[in-house]
Amino acid sequence: MSFGTSHLSIDSSRLLRRLEELGQIGRDSDGKLTRLAASDADKAGRDLLASWIKEAGLELAVDRIGNLFGIWQAGDSSNAPLLIGSHIDTVIHAGIYDGCYGVLSGLEVIQTLRASGFAPLRPIVVCAFTNEEGVRYAPDMLGSLVFAGGMPVEEALAAVGTDGSVLGDELARIGYLGNLEAGFMKPFAYLELHIEQGPILEAESIPIGAVESVTGISWMRITIEGTANHAGTTPMSMRRDAGYAAARVITFLNERVASLRSPAVVTVGCIEFEPNAINVIPARATFTVDLRDADEQRLQEEEAALAEYLAELAVELNVKISAEPLARVEPAQFDARIVELVEAAARQRGLSSKRMISGAVHDAQMVARICPAGMIFVPSIGGISHNPNEFTPEPDLVAGANVLLDVTVKLVGSLSSSGINLTL
Amino acid sequence: MSFGTSHLSIDSSRLLRRLEELGQIGRDSDGKLTRLAASDADKAGRDLLASWIKEAGLELAVDRIGNLFGIWQAGDSSNAPLLIGSHIDTVIHAGIYDGCYGVLSGLEVIQTLRASGFAPLRPIVVCAFTNEEGVRYAPDMLGSLVFAGGMPVEEALAAVGTDGSVLGDELARIGYLGNLEAGFMKPFAYLELHIEQGPILEAESIPIGAVESVTGISWMRITIEGTANHAGTTPMSMRRDAGYAAARVITFLNERVASLRSPAVVTVGCIEFEPNAINVIPARATFTVDLRDADEQRLQEEEAALAEYLAELAVELNVKISAEPLARVEPAQFDARIVELVEAAARQRGLSSKRMISGAVHDAQMVARICPAGMIFVPSIGGISHNPNEFTPEPDLVAGANVLLDVTVKLVGSLSSSGINLTL
Repeated sequence: MSFGTSHLSIDSSRLLRRLEELGQIGRDSDGKLTRLAASDADKAGRDLLASWIKEAGLELAVDRIGNLFGIWQAGDSSNAPLLIGSHIDTVIHAGIYDGCYGVLSGLEVIQTLRASGFAPLRPIVVCAFTNEEGVRYAPDMLGSLVFAGGMPVEEALAAVGTDGSVLGDELARIGYLGNLEAGFMKPFAYLELHIEQGPILEAESIPIGAVESVTGISWMRITIEGTANHAGTTPMSMRRDAGYAAARVITFLNERVASLRSPAVVTVGCIEFEPNAINVIPARATFTVDLRDADEQRLQEEEAALAEYLAELAVELNVKISAEPLARVEPAQFDARIVELVEAAARQRGLSSKRMISGAVHDAQMVARICPAGMIFVPSIGGISHNPNEFTPEPDLVAGANVLLDVTVKLVGSLSSSGINLTL
Repeated sequence: MSFGTSHLSIDSSRLLRRLEELGQIGRDSDGKLTRLAASDADKAGRDLLASWIKEAGLELAVDRIGNLFGIWQAGDSSNAPLLIGSHIDTVIHAGIYDGCYGVLSGLEVIQTLRASGFAPLRPIVVCAFTNEEGVRYAPDMLGSLVFAGGMPVEEALAAVGTDGSVLGDELARIGYLGNLEAGFMKPFAYLELHIEQGPILEAESIPIGAVESVTGISWMRITIEGTANHAGTTPMSMRRDAGYAAARVITFLNERVASLRSPAVVTVGCIEFEPNAINVIPARATFTVDLRDADEQRLQEEEAALAEYLAELAVELNVKISAEPLARVEPAQFDARIVELVEAAARQRGLSSKRMISGAVHDAQMVARICPAGMIFVPSIGGISHNPNEFTPEPDLVAGANVLLDVTVKLVGSLSSSGINLTL
């Protein structure tokens, strides 16, 4: 496989400058970055992105759920476009890379190609999806979900935020409630470049991740009911200790999932005992389970193993246990040909790469429902994200954007290129 | 061993009526009982008790820490008195038995003996100690601690309550800051009748507990520090999960202590994870440990075993663990002769009895520092106490008070009795 335009590279200083500039929007008085979906800060960020889209000579478009597009009407307009996307909304006290890096790199790739005289066979579009983080409105990945036809736009616009606001009202207020039908465009393929948000690439000193799939997620709340009794006067054999039962479940889950030697992960992040007194046996323990696996069958096996353990433990410890599903997302598989293109592009650039599973959710898994999709990861130092300390070194940022450039070129083909005619 | 006055019995209707009447003092608008030390409700309860003490013909006395005494100046006044005591302060939303049952039974025993013409060889005194529960002021058992010389009275009076009040000011305000030096009286022996606050007597259908000792207590706060990371993107092998480490400690403690087949008990009643988010690996877990054993050496062995496990686990899970002692009380042993007297008295009344360890703390363990002491337990239905549902059936209440009567008679001797001259 050859990359006819591999002499091209993105304008790294422009990309890095824009990343810094966008990252200054939404800072509070302490300098912390928060740009929640459809907020004033989001409007300011969108305005800046829109100005860059126009500056690049692209057509600005907004759909009915506020997804923002920069369209390069190139090649045969009857050909479905290649879509490159991510998001620019953030969590509370965010870093500057999550989402923004993918959107700005998509814009950078298009701008570089246009300036080079490259003549693609199909349009190339950059997109910033609305409310990916899900901090203000549920569910997360809302904009890409609606784009992919997974939720009616009216239902999404009626979403009520944690602050009581209605998404549709807020999008109108900030001027980003567009007229285009959600899903007005059916992409030929979708690419998303993103920071890993995990420690693997850094730990293995590999600059490029070729993402094969996004993990499925099973979120549960488990409630254990025992009996509150005096910590001193109740013999061990006569206890119904909900807190001890919770500890047994957490221990079981961690030991089991760690022993699987699979990419599965499990986390108990929230816990609460009642009455939460030092000298009272807990009558109730409530905790959350976040269980992830990239394979749906394995994920179901883990859920079943947990259910079986809960049933056994309830008998052993004479407690009542209930598990309430909070969220369930099936794993998403990316297109094998795009994974290979990412690997090949990295190789041609002299960059090592690794096939990986995304443990975090991304817009790409929504768009993967309607077209071949793929993701490229770059290292996150310390695996840190959703945090002001989120960081990816500049050489890695530039390398990732250049791989995106090369894969884009392969996917859109060129009127002037004699390269492989890739049919997806 | 014979009980020359075993034809005597307490006035059960008077005892039960007083228990109900005192239990009505300190009710809120929902009917919940709360009579915190040195509060207005405590004043009302003390006033009622004082009126009964006077009605019984006893001398009312209050010491400098507010301990309230009813003194029967009988026998040879140069003989040290027998002291019968407990407390009438309560926890928040209390039952009516904890403490009050012991004080009112002591009064009942004295009143019964006086009315019968019984002539003891030494004074008999009933006492209500200040702030046993420790809900408003720390430490608990404050009044008996000061009485036994374990804390200077000035230090105790300066105790600042959870509401910001100062104990000495509050005692003065409610009129129960007495003039008698704390410890003005050195008892010949001490008796305390109390509800078990545990489930053992009820479960074994035994009406009388002959308490041999009070468990020692070791309270700790354990803090585990790991690293907050993304629940999806951090492989199991790269985690420093403080919450999982906490679960391992809780599991270890429960499994180990349960396997000892000793009276030791352990409880983790409070827990907190930070940041406490469903999709973030806990960076910090904080939890309390309440470890009790009636044998000081075994208690130290359990503390050492925990410390060893924490050190091993910190290495295994790559987390930082620290343990902060919060409170430490050594076990208290009661006088073996009094334990035998309780057993004998129960037997003579046709009541089964059981030697037991008190898992809860009591004023008796403080007074045991300065004289031979003993406790009598009666069943607590369901082991429930510190709760409006605290309950002991009337026949058990009456049986316990009659055993207290008989043991009192044995301990004080009688001018008219030809019984055994018990020398403690």
